[in-house]
Amino acid sequence: MTEALSAPNSPAALRSLIRAGRWLSPTAGLTPGFAQANLVVLPHAWAYEFLLFCQRNPKPCPLLEVTDTGNWEPIASAPGADLRQDLPYYHVYQNGELVERRRNILDLWQGDWVAFLLGCSFTFEEGLLEAGVPVRHIACGRNVPMYRTTIGCRPAGRFSGPMVVSMRPIPADLVVRSVQVTSRYPAVHGAPVHIGDPATIGIADLMCPDYGDQPDVRPGDVPIFWACGVTPQAVATAAKTDLMVTHAPGHMFITDIPTASLAVF
Amino acid sequence: MTEALSAPNSPAALRSLIRAGRWLSPTAGLTPGFAQANLVVLPHAWAYEFLLFCQRNPKPCPLLEVTDTGNWEPIASAPGADLRQDLPYYHVYQNGELVERRRNILDLWQGDWVAFLLGCSFTFEEGLLEAGVPVRHIACGRNVPMYRTTIGCRPAGRFSGPMVVSMRPIPADLVVRSVQVTSRYPAVHGAPVHIGDPATIGIADLMCPDYGDQPDVRPGDVPIFWACGVTPQAVATAAKTDLMVTHAPGHMFITDIPTASLAVF
Repeated sequence: MTEALSAPNSPAALRSLIRAGRWLSPTAGLTPGFAQANLVVLPHAWAYEFLLFCQRNPKPCPLLEVTDTGNWEPIASAPGADLRQDLPYYHVYQNGELVERRRNILDLWQGDWVAFLLGCSFTFEEGLLEAGVPVRHIACGRNVPMYRTTIGCRPAGRFSGPMVVSMRPIPADLVVRSVQVTSRYPAVHGAPVHIGDPATIGIADLMCPDYGDQPDVRPGDVPIFWACGVTPQAVATAAKTDLMVTHAPGHMFITDIPTASLAVF
Repeated sequence: MTEALSAPNSPAALRSLIRAGRWLSPTAGLTPGFAQANLVVLPHAWAYEFLLFCQRNPKPCPLLEVTDTGNWEPIASAPGADLRQDLPYYHVYQNGELVERRRNILDLWQGDWVAFLLGCSFTFEEGLLEAGVPVRHIACGRNVPMYRTTIGCRPAGRFSGPMVVSMRPIPADLVVRSVQVTSRYPAVHGAPVHIGDPATIGIADLMCPDYGDQPDVRPGDVPIFWACGVTPQAVATAAKTDLMVTHAPGHMFITDIPTASLAVF
């Protein structure tokens, strides 16, 4: 039986709680001031092309760390952590199909696996809130809406596909501020990729996102679109990698990286 | 016989002149407003570890582009260009030793070669000069002084070693401005890695650089150190890659990338 717990503010303490199976919920809003990360684990045979895909598409795929082949410890972003068991839930894909949701991947881990940690928009949402910009989906307790677009990613080997974006409706008088705030954080998707008309980037119906929840758009709001960390998962799924492990949506890896240290200045 | 030519201001026109063998000089100061790049070519068997080294050490190794394996065209940074013949001079290394200086590598190029283009400090020097910050080595027609330091790079596979830095003596009242200006360009080494006492980063004698020319330090100048693009060449040489091709020092690749487009904002 899991007792009701308030989450600790230290990343290491929260990771311990997660490892012990005592925190199984989404991580949004936890350990304020520290960056959270998307996880993608691939066999070494896919690692070069994936790394190249990230280099060519830094807005949807901002790399925070790539582990040494076979090593589950992210020595730069969270020394002592274990990427096999320090996230609440994992998704396992085989040949592009989701086959399992798991609490850890201790018994799956292979000596040729490489873990990629990618910046997550939770980090810049903290910056928006601090700057007085409302974040609608947080206010109403939903997941951010996400959409496939007609913006093509630059292909790399077997990886290619359209960019997936997240959308936040922003009051018109705060649009400029939201560009400024998020521009400071290129390591967590950075500045928006589009402002305004969804049709321009191939989105037919703003109220029908491809991932996440329906948006809460209020009168006077302008839709602002940011490159989304679902993109690399989507292209890896389309490439039908023989194996891929990711975090379960919303259940991110908590790093020791202070958000402020990611700001360009 | 090469007639005296003034360099064209367009990157494509200058690359044509270079390809025709009519421009054989260093490229510093040419095509103002466009980024120049360091070239490192490695066989595919070394490419993943080198790409990972660049990911882990973005200040000395800011990647502008990585070509597809076997492809000599930098399709993102200079479509139509040919990295086998559009630089004035190339250096060829075997097992870590410089074995040849060449006008082109047309007959050497192999189907498993990968070309890496890395940002070059010529780009931020333009920004310093525009901001009224004197750049001493340019003023006296010398090469920038460069030093091995005790700052360790994060290793990646067979690549490891100390960071190499370049040094520019800056008048004390312009030190802050020089930090601000170069911070805008992370894609070309970005902000300094050290300001002041050379001994702090393991430099015994500022007047005896390990590469480049002796500095011109004037009364009231403060030495400022930036991560240097010689770093990746130095670690690749130390790793004794079976083969590596680079630009000859000072003879860079001219991209079509406007300098202004590299500014973070």
